[in-house]
Amino acid sequence: MSKSFSPLLSELIEALRVLPGVGGKSAQRMAFSLLERNRDGALRLSKVLHDAMEHIGNCTQCRTFTEKNLCDICAHPTRGSADTICIVEAPQDVLAIEQTSQFKGRYFVLMGHLSPLDGIGPEQIGLDVLAEQLDAGGVNEVIVATNPTVEGEATSHYIAEMCRKRSISASRIAHGVPVGGELEYIDGNTLGHALSGRRGI
Amino acid sequence: MSKSFSPLLSELIEALRVLPGVGGKSAQRMAFSLLERNRDGALRLSKVLHDAMEHIGNCTQCRTFTEKNLCDICAHPTRGSADTICIVEAPQDVLAIEQTSQFKGRYFVLMGHLSPLDGIGPEQIGLDVLAEQLDAGGVNEVIVATNPTVEGEATSHYIAEMCRKRSISASRIAHGVPVGGELEYIDGNTLGHALSGRRGI
Repeated sequence: MSKSFSPLLSELIEALRVLPGVGGKSAQRMAFSLLERNRDGALRLSKVLHDAMEHIGNCTQCRTFTEKNLCDICAHPTRGSADTICIVEAPQDVLAIEQTSQFKGRYFVLMGHLSPLDGIGPEQIGLDVLAEQLDAGGVNEVIVATNPTVEGEATSHYIAEMCRKRSISASRIAHGVPVGGELEYIDGNTLGHALSGRRGI
Repeated sequence: MSKSFSPLLSELIEALRVLPGVGGKSAQRMAFSLLERNRDGALRLSKVLHDAMEHIGNCTQCRTFTEKNLCDICAHPTRGSADTICIVEAPQDVLAIEQTSQFKGRYFVLMGHLSPLDGIGPEQIGLDVLAEQLDAGGVNEVIVATNPTVEGEATSHYIAEMCRKRSISASRIAHGVPVGGELEYIDGNTLGHALSGRRGI
């Protein structure tokens, strides 16, 4: 493709394609933009990228990404040993829930969801680690906040079963009409959830 | 924004935003995708990015990006000293013209276009270097392939004037209806060019 670019430039364009959503043309545009306008920024990116890939691992308690042994929430004096665990699929979900400021417990990040066809079973998403934590005691409530997709629901059911066996209360976050949403634009599936999950007023 | 991500992860997300067209959400997605699925690719990108920013400079003859003193075309035994120069705005344009296989001369890459309001005058786009090359002799024809924009046209006129003073033939690539295009979908400006540039059949 890039026979008229110098070998190093072609290599850069090719390397940029590891980024999700970046194809040949975008990679070209990125390479030229960095070379022309922001070499310092690109050198900083190169360094941070290297450090991050070398040093970021998973929190030993909640599995989220961190360069430390324990993430900030798990290392927190009260939250790290809270008796309520909120289970999410991804580190971004932790951020979303933290922004509500309504949850003061700790998290457990699955880094995925059950998907047997892709070879992702309970151990691939750390449910064996979660089981140990539940067995160790000190956990009174599990809130499952996996995504409302088929895989997310299956994962949720599996976790609910784990909790039932250990007599730990498990709940699922509510699914229904988003606040500010208008009924006529809500899909039938969501509306069905909203109806079946109705509460007394 | 990312108070719940570890410092290094936040830094990575921030650093990825130097890429053109990448905002906060995309940067987050890229960071997680690399950490989860392609650390080797990211490390390779880090290395190539560093090498490219450190070693890629401009060809001393045509100004295109290369890590060598002369780019491949300028270093070519016959093309590098060809008597025809094609002037383009960007290295990508060289690639586009090379793909037609119809041009066997050498190039001169402006790395921009005249834009006095942005402080981009003749010297910023290397027209002083081009003048030296024209003065040195050996150039019989200059083909101006700048973009058909206001700035591209202004740049083209400036170069035509440089050539006229030195009695070197200058031409502009044709603008008109793209091959395969249908008249009814062509904008009026292009059609105007097509009409005024008509040729006998």
